Formats: sequence, structure tokens, C-alpha cells
Amino acid sequence: MEQANKDRSLVSKVMDGLVTGIVEEKYGAILPPQDVLSKEFDVSRTVMREALSMLLARDMLDVRPKIGTRIRPMSDWRMIDEDVVNWRFRAKPDPLFLRDVIEFRILIEPRASAQAAARGSAADIAAIREAFEAFRAIRPGEPGYQAADELFHARIVVASGNQFFKQMAAIIRGALSTVNPIISQKDGMWEKAVGTHQRVVEAIERRDPKEAEIASLAMIDYTAEEIGSKFTSEPPVRG
Amino acid sequence: MEQANKDRSLVSKVMDGLVTGIVEEKYGAILPPQDVLSKEFDVSRTVMREALSMLLARDMLDVRPKIGTRIRPMSDWRMIDEDVVNWRFRAKPDPLFLRDVIEFRILIEPRASAQAAARGSAADIAAIREAFEAFRAIRPGEPGYQAADELFHARIVVASGNQFFKQMAAIIRGALSTVNPIISQKDGMWEKAVGTHQRVVEAIERRDPKEAEIASLAMIDYTAEEIGSKFTSEPPVRG
Repeated sequence: MEQANKDRSLVSKVMDGLVTGIVEEKYGAILPPQDVLSKEFDVSRTVMREALSMLLARDMLDVRPKIGTRIRPMSDWRMIDEDVVNWRFRAKPDPLFLRDVIEFRILIEPRASAQAAARGSAADIAAIREAFEAFRAIRPGEPGYQAADELFHARIVVASGNQFFKQMAAIIRGALSTVNPIISQKDGMWEKAVGTHQRVVEAIERRDPKEAEIASLAMIDYTAEEIGSKFTSEPPVRG
Repeated sequence: MEQANKDRSLVSKVMDGLVTGIVEEKYGAILPPQDVLSKEFDVSRTVMREALSMLLARDMLDVRPKIGTRIRPMSDWRMIDEDVVNWRFRAKPDPLFLRDVIEFRILIEPRASAQAAARGSAADIAAIREAFEAFRAIRPGEPGYQAADELFHARIVVASGNQFFKQMAAIIRGALSTVNPIISQKDGMWEKAVGTHQRVVEAIERRDPKEAEIASLAMIDYTAEEIGSKFTSEPPVRG
């Protein structure tokens, strides 16, 4: 136990040292090999490997065969602890949690959609269309439906170009995993979902931020109403 | 190394098992003692202690002397990886990062202020006033200034009652740590900051969500303009 604690605090110290070197641009684009780093920090290769694996798990590094360990752009560094998000959404949703999730989505997604329309790259927008076509091709209950919907929503926050919005994709994915099973059972919901999603895609393609924002709000509001009628006696608070 | 990997994956498995038990409300409010859990999961006490320490670090548990290990409310579970946030904000800010931070704050804080006014408890609102008075009592450059400002902004997102907004406090703290050193050097900035903060507090105290939202937007916009004039040739995108 004592040894385990000692190793852990050593790993933390090495992580901190590595990150300091990275943010001070000491290493350039590619980290030195593990044995060089072990010597630099005067730690065992095991400790160094563990510190590197913690940074890898946070999307701060990636390993390229024959090239080495590349430092990823800081905007990719994962600020969200996806384990906790997944655990949180695994619990049975209570009405307050659903209210909070919907309020959060109503804040993030319409603004992200507007920014996707205003400044998404052509490739970003083509990726949204592609995800929409994949979503439209699958029925609720078929394998891949949930994943297709999640990809659509994630690509919108990516296209916003704002690195903090992009980080919120994990929370939006969790929200969809909670909301979709509730609403997709209802008759006619899928057709309506395709319609509300399509309106968002088309507004983004037309580069119309105002309409993209309104369409996104309508898309979330629609599910919010359905959830509201199922889970609470009054409709959830709106944005 | 192999042993380290094996321990790590075992710790992950135990964490997952513990969380499953927690979300299925198997344990009630207090976890069984460590040695009971070790037997239940058939792992060493070291592995169990490590799994519990990972959950503790994420604000999912706390240890109460003589009571035991309490399961914290799920709304407290920390979805933000504060290490990564701190590292990200430690790097020299580039204009794009500042733009993204300001866009994010402009989205979260005004809405959180409105909700604090609409549904914050009396204790929440008293805590905002208290933090404001502490902020007003310290000058920029004096010890505690940064901490007082962070506390003020954190208490607003807490008072919003939305658990996702509350989670964003770490990012807002990071934003302030980047922004304050830039703007607090300017003459007259502190007086203006006190004024903009005061307007937010008073609107929340009057339970006026609309005015709280506008006042919060003005508070952020003001710093955004100062940052914009310093870091970019054009003003940052506004909400």
C-alpha cells in the first residue's frame, strides 16, 4: 500500500513535469523516446510509461508507429472525465436530472449550431450532412440508431469550432442515451426527429446562423416536451 | 510493467463494479467497510483502496470519521477533469483560445445568473453577496484577489441549481486565472469590475432573472472588450 501510494504520487509528479515541458514548448511536436524521458526525470521506465498512459487516455498524446509519441493540439485535450459522465448517465434519471440535462443542451447546442453555420469548414458541414443521412437510414430499435444520432450531434459541436463546446460532446451523448429510449417508443416520433434534424442540417448548409439556432432549439424543445409530459407534472424550464 | 497493467485493469473493473452497485442503490448511503468490499469483489485490500481513492478524487465519496465512506449525491460527481483544465489554462493563451473561453463564459454565466435569481436558495444568494463583499475588500495584486473573484463566480453557477452549470465552475476559474492578470493591470479596471459585479449581485438579490442575465453579460463583455483590444485586431465574437 505504501509503495502504491509512493508510485502514484511519483506518477503525478512526472505527469506534471511532462505537461510543464509540453506547455512551455520544450519538446516540439514529438516527445523524446521513453528511455530518454525516464533518464531526464530520473524515474523507472514503469513510472514513465504509466505517466504517459495517463496523458494518452486524456487525448493529450498519440502514438504513431515509426514516428513516436506526438503531442496533440491542446484544443483536443480532454477536459471531461468520460468515466464519470457515463456513470452519471447510467443511473436511473430523476426529473431534476432530466431538467438539468435539457437546460444544458438548450444552452449549448443552438449556439453551437449557429456557429457551425457561421464558421464551420466545408468538410465539417459535409460531415454533419453525412451523419444526418446515416441517421435517417436507420430506424429506432435497429442497431446503430443511437450511435448515428450521437454522431450527428457531436459533429455539430465540433463544427462550431469552439473547443469548449466540442468538449461538451460527451455530455450531449449521455443526454441522448437517456432521452432516446424514452421518446423513440412513441408513434410518429422518429419521423418528427428526422424532420427536426433535417431543418438544422439545411440551415447550417445555407450558412444561416439565426435559422440554425432556432431549428436546433426546436429540435431540443420537442424532445423536452415529450420528456416533460412523461416525467414531470409541469414542462421543464426553457431557455 | 505487466503487473502494473494488470493491477490497473483490475482497479478499473472494481471501480466499475462499485459504481454499478452505487447507481443501483445496492449500498444505501454508506459503503460497507473496505475489508468487506475486498471480500465481495475478491481483490486485495490494496486494489480496493486504490479503486476507492479514484472515486474519492472524483467527489463521488467522502470519508466521515466514525461514520464511514459516504456516497455523495450524484450531482456532486465531478465530470470535469480538473488536472486537464488546469494544464490547459497554464499554457500561454492564444487569441483563438481566449475567443473560445469568452464565448463559453458568455453562454454559461448569464444563464446561470438568471437561474440563480429565479430559483437560488436564500443561503445560495447570501453566499454570493458574501463572496462579493470579500472581493470588494481586496485590491488586484493583493493576496487572495484571484481566489475571491473565483469564489464569486463559482457561487453563481452553484446557485443556478443546475448540476451541469455547477460542473463548469472549474472552466470559469481557469478563464479568470487567464483573464484577470491581463486586465487588472489597467487603470480604473478594478473600480469597473466592482461595479459590474455589484450589478449582478443586486439583480440576483432582487430575484430579477432578466436583469441578472443582462448584468452578467455586461460583466463578461467588458472584460471581453479589454481582452479583444489587447489580443486580436477585431473584437471577439459576441453572444
